[in-house]
Amino acid sequence: MDIADLATRLRSGNRRALARGITLIESHRPDHRAQATELLERLADPSRQTLRIGLSGTPGVGKSTFIEAFGQTLIAEGHRVAVLAIDPSSARSGGSILGDKTRMERLSRNPAAFIRPSPSQTELGGVARRTREAILLCEAAGYDAVLVETVGVGQSETMVAQMTDLFVLLLAPGGGDELQGVKRGIMEIADLILVNKADGALKPQAEATRADYAGALRLLRRREGDPDDFPKALSVSALDQRGLDEAWEAMLALTTHRRDSGFFVTRRATQNRDWFEEAVLSGILQRLRQDPALRGSMETLGHAVSEGQMAPGAAADRLVERFLA
Amino acid sequence: MDIADLATRLRSGNRRALARGITLIESHRPDHRAQATELLERLADPSRQTLRIGLSGTPGVGKSTFIEAFGQTLIAEGHRVAVLAIDPSSARSGGSILGDKTRMERLSRNPAAFIRPSPSQTELGGVARRTREAILLCEAAGYDAVLVETVGVGQSETMVAQMTDLFVLLLAPGGGDELQGVKRGIMEIADLILVNKADGALKPQAEATRADYAGALRLLRRREGDPDDFPKALSVSALDQRGLDEAWEAMLALTTHRRDSGFFVTRRATQNRDWFEEAVLSGILQRLRQDPALRGSMETLGHAVSEGQMAPGAAADRLVERFLA
Repeated sequence: MDIADLATRLRSGNRRALARGITLIESHRPDHRAQATELLERLADPSRQTLRIGLSGTPGVGKSTFIEAFGQTLIAEGHRVAVLAIDPSSARSGGSILGDKTRMERLSRNPAAFIRPSPSQTELGGVARRTREAILLCEAAGYDAVLVETVGVGQSETMVAQMTDLFVLLLAPGGGDELQGVKRGIMEIADLILVNKADGALKPQAEATRADYAGALRLLRRREGDPDDFPKALSVSALDQRGLDEAWEAMLALTTHRRDSGFFVTRRATQNRDWFEEAVLSGILQRLRQDPALRGSMETLGHAVSEGQMAPGAAADRLVERFLA
Repeated sequence: MDIADLATRLRSGNRRALARGITLIESHRPDHRAQATELLERLADPSRQTLRIGLSGTPGVGKSTFIEAFGQTLIAEGHRVAVLAIDPSSARSGGSILGDKTRMERLSRNPAAFIRPSPSQTELGGVARRTREAILLCEAAGYDAVLVETVGVGQSETMVAQMTDLFVLLLAPGGGDELQGVKRGIMEIADLILVNKADGALKPQAEATRADYAGALRLLRRREGDPDDFPKALSVSALDQRGLDEAWEAMLALTTHRRDSGFFVTRRATQNRDWFEEAVLSGILQRLRQDPALRGSMETLGHAVSEGQMAPGAAADRLVERFLA
């Protein structure tokens, strides 16, 4: 593959080149990995102005409908929008955020939008690296607003927050105590809470839920780099396409504030550094997995462990000592 | 700390000794780690007959109420029950499965039950190792039924399934298409689906949901080691304490079948081997994190990365090559 040519076509906004670039960075083959690195270096441009928006919501909050409507709001404002998905359950099943293009039919047909279904993955660390690289490729192809979405509960939110400039939590009206408990950790990283489905019969409940969360956010500690009225909670209706402009204005206000204060640039620098450190450790680990001496010892001791002759933890401790001695 | 003494007290069923043992295995201190390994070796007994039950359910399905009621069913059958929690969101927030003892008040007061709140963790790999070790400690203290519970979506289910003998998925009546999509990967690992809240007005819907899932399970491929009627779906009411005996009978039937076929023992052996391999790699990784030469290079290159002079992935690739050369 001619990487220089791919880079040129990708930079000109060619969608097939972008899709191909993402396939390249998703590949596990060592030669593809080297090509992916070359591609990323050719496309690097620190002066590029983009906004990376993390979006999370549990199943049923209307995430697809929201992205469909919000994406078109951004396009109407003159932006080009890329949508990437991180799917924590894909490790085994090959993906639950299925058929992203079917989910967001109108948006996917819009020439100013690019939607990439989440790839099936083997480990969460790999997902982070590949999504980060996919963000860079989308930005190089001219998509200046990149939405990284993830499903509900777990570590994937933290991961998304660590690779985006702001983090939006989409909620449905209502939600019991247990639900709110689960959200505690997520609320700490949310810059903006949007209560969706503020339409029809659910409208009053959506407003009440918004007020509840606004109150809860006030109780959280103020965070470094935030303007006075952030984090904030708004209600929206993706269905009626209401409140989307206000949501975008809130994101812009926060972004402008962070750019002016220098927080935006500092945060991206920190994210790059964290990304680098993670990539170093996972790279070393990947190489070790293939190390013949280590594999041999693991084979022998692993047999003893599965036969019940040794405890797994103790056997591992011993092998680590020996290997690093 | 006198580990021999702790092991003796723990083996006699002393709850404080068990709690102390779990605190020891949760510690990051290298001297504690060595003591934890010694403790586990002293307590090892491959002939111990126990059952490890993985349990998952999204927030709102009534997981606490179920465990509270089901735990008492097991105790009434003469078992001693330990409850451990894996909380994927605890990486940042310090835990969302908060106040486990308050959640399961009656069970926690029962002398035949032991409930351990999920510790706050820094990385998912560490959670797996510590939970596996906590299972062993609980079993050594005479708890022959260990429930490992986790919240909803994500990798934590796979992790729980990899350390238990059978995996139970708790669902609520109803659930839209998107919800079912998310569950696809989980359904593949579920041995038993329990539709909770089969009481009051929700009873007919719970039964309909049960029938839906029973149909879906029939469409899944038959799995190695399963009896004819597994995986299966039942409806239960934790609130009215109905269907719990049947659920336990189903778990016993599956366990007996797997013991008779040898699958039970083979699976535990495979789990031990996987555990060992994971522990080796994470042990090496942990040591590398502290390696002064690697830390020095990471410091220098990391600075260049955060200054925008180098791309994170490319810089990482280069460092990995150099370090392993």
